[in-house]
Amino acid sequence: MISGLPMTVPDPALPDRVRIHEVGPRDGLQNEKAVVPAEIKAEFIRRLAASGLSVIEATSFVHPKWVPQLADAEQLMPMLADVPARLPVLVPNERGLDRALALGVREVAVFASATESFAKANLNRTVDESLEMFAPVVARAREAGGSVRGYLSMCFGDPWEGAVPVDQVVRVSRRLLDLGCDELSLGDTIGVATPGHVAALLTALGEAGVPAGRLAVHFHDTYGQALSNTLTALRHGVTTVDASAGGLGGCPYAKSATGNLATEDLVWMLEGLGIATGVDLGLLTATSVWMAAHLGRPSPSRTVRALAHQEH
Amino acid sequence: MISGLPMTVPDPALPDRVRIHEVGPRDGLQNEKAVVPAEIKAEFIRRLAASGLSVIEATSFVHPKWVPQLADAEQLMPMLADVPARLPVLVPNERGLDRALALGVREVAVFASATESFAKANLNRTVDESLEMFAPVVARAREAGGSVRGYLSMCFGDPWEGAVPVDQVVRVSRRLLDLGCDELSLGDTIGVATPGHVAALLTALGEAGVPAGRLAVHFHDTYGQALSNTLTALRHGVTTVDASAGGLGGCPYAKSATGNLATEDLVWMLEGLGIATGVDLGLLTATSVWMAAHLGRPSPSRTVRALAHQEH
Repeated sequence: MISGLPMTVPDPALPDRVRIHEVGPRDGLQNEKAVVPAEIKAEFIRRLAASGLSVIEATSFVHPKWVPQLADAEQLMPMLADVPARLPVLVPNERGLDRALALGVREVAVFASATESFAKANLNRTVDESLEMFAPVVARAREAGGSVRGYLSMCFGDPWEGAVPVDQVVRVSRRLLDLGCDELSLGDTIGVATPGHVAALLTALGEAGVPAGRLAVHFHDTYGQALSNTLTALRHGVTTVDASAGGLGGCPYAKSATGNLATEDLVWMLEGLGIATGVDLGLLTATSVWMAAHLGRPSPSRTVRALAHQEH
Repeated sequence: MISGLPMTVPDPALPDRVRIHEVGPRDGLQNEKAVVPAEIKAEFIRRLAASGLSVIEATSFVHPKWVPQLADAEQLMPMLADVPARLPVLVPNERGLDRALALGVREVAVFASATESFAKANLNRTVDESLEMFAPVVARAREAGGSVRGYLSMCFGDPWEGAVPVDQVVRVSRRLLDLGCDELSLGDTIGVATPGHVAALLTALGEAGVPAGRLAVHFHDTYGQALSNTLTALRHGVTTVDASAGGLGGCPYAKSATGNLATEDLVWMLEGLGIATGVDLGLLTATSVWMAAHLGRPSPSRTVRALAHQEH
């Protein structure tokens, strides 16, 4: 049993409840070179759900050639039929959507870029061309009764272009929502954002008519800024936060050992602030310790390390 | 040359300038088992000053038996005569003060506890007895024309007592200031604090008549919370922040690999917020990479790792 929680002192300026969008099984594992067996992935997702996470991005229906780690999507999804959580999947295009729909999946996500350079590097398209590619994906997913999340990457900095202008991010955001995306996840893919920049983007999106309730934030901890940026987003009304159990993953373009905000570090802060998440931090930490053992290296999450160390 | 800075987007609710109180050479190194030669320590401090840090806690005049790493204080201080920075030192008692004064040091710090358990464990005294021990230290340092910083540890949680009541911290804080301490550094020694708790303590201190200008904050990153807590303190008017170059150090009672807030992670956030520190992040990071090589293990600072990795 791993246990330990901070003292709870709420801040009235913050929301009462936050929905954590767990991305470990997809965004976390996709950068792991050694392929994790589908049975382990299924067990990982089951344990995450048992720890109280209600939204767990399960896999990606990308072409197996591009992400061999997630080539087992057809094998994995049927193993998760009894998992008591929403299990969205990433679909890069209509072919991926077809594969997801064939398995009965109705909750999907598309992955767009705020910058031309990353659209070219990641999708081999211009931003406009990528949005054209997503249009029928979004439309058909909604016709099938599903919901669509739009990821928008490189919202703060881009490794080729440097700082990304706020109005450029607002423009692409509006277009993704106009396509029919239900939710938009703003990604700091290379982890360079700081709180003033986060506040500026969220303020600009609000002025452009985007309700905070349709936004999620997706921060990377490359420079140790993910949690401060998340706190800033909560102050601006955002209530959906992406995180990765144990801090798994990271953008291969970020050239750094650290990637996604660790779900445990986030839960520690939210617990301390009295913000409900439904997550049992001890069960979640035990899950990340188990997964780290499978991957053969310690979790980069500070909270996982601290709580797991107390255990021994 | 290590380079890389975030885009600058100020937040008008935050201060224009922050003074970083660098604790790496003292608080960081004191937990290192392998003794670092005085020449390396002097070079470390010279490099920190050259990176723009204006206050660098240099060593401790504690009994050599308790902290063998810092037993060379008499050897070290004369080597730093030409360093263009304030170089305060820790003095545990009158004997330590005598040693510091004999070397011409006029800026000292005492180390108190907000909890009885840690006072007993660290000082082998009650809180009252430790304050009685500090009274002549503070008085004599000031008579000698010096200034005194009071560290107050375990301000949020204590490994034996759990959550520490805010009014208990306020009471000991007032007494340290009444003794004559010029500045009070509020320590989250085991790293458990979260932003609501930080806000509550700073609000209570303000209500007790303690000006924010006499406070510093000293957060540990054990659970990844140090920077969010620092941001919260800045929102409450605090403008002096303790940090350790490269994230060196940590409390031995915290049972974790991570300790002090890394100065580089702090500077990244402050640079992004347009808050002046005087620090050149590239020079500072190069210093931490150099020190990490001497210590034989990588820096735990996310920013140091990210910037150093870009270098290669």
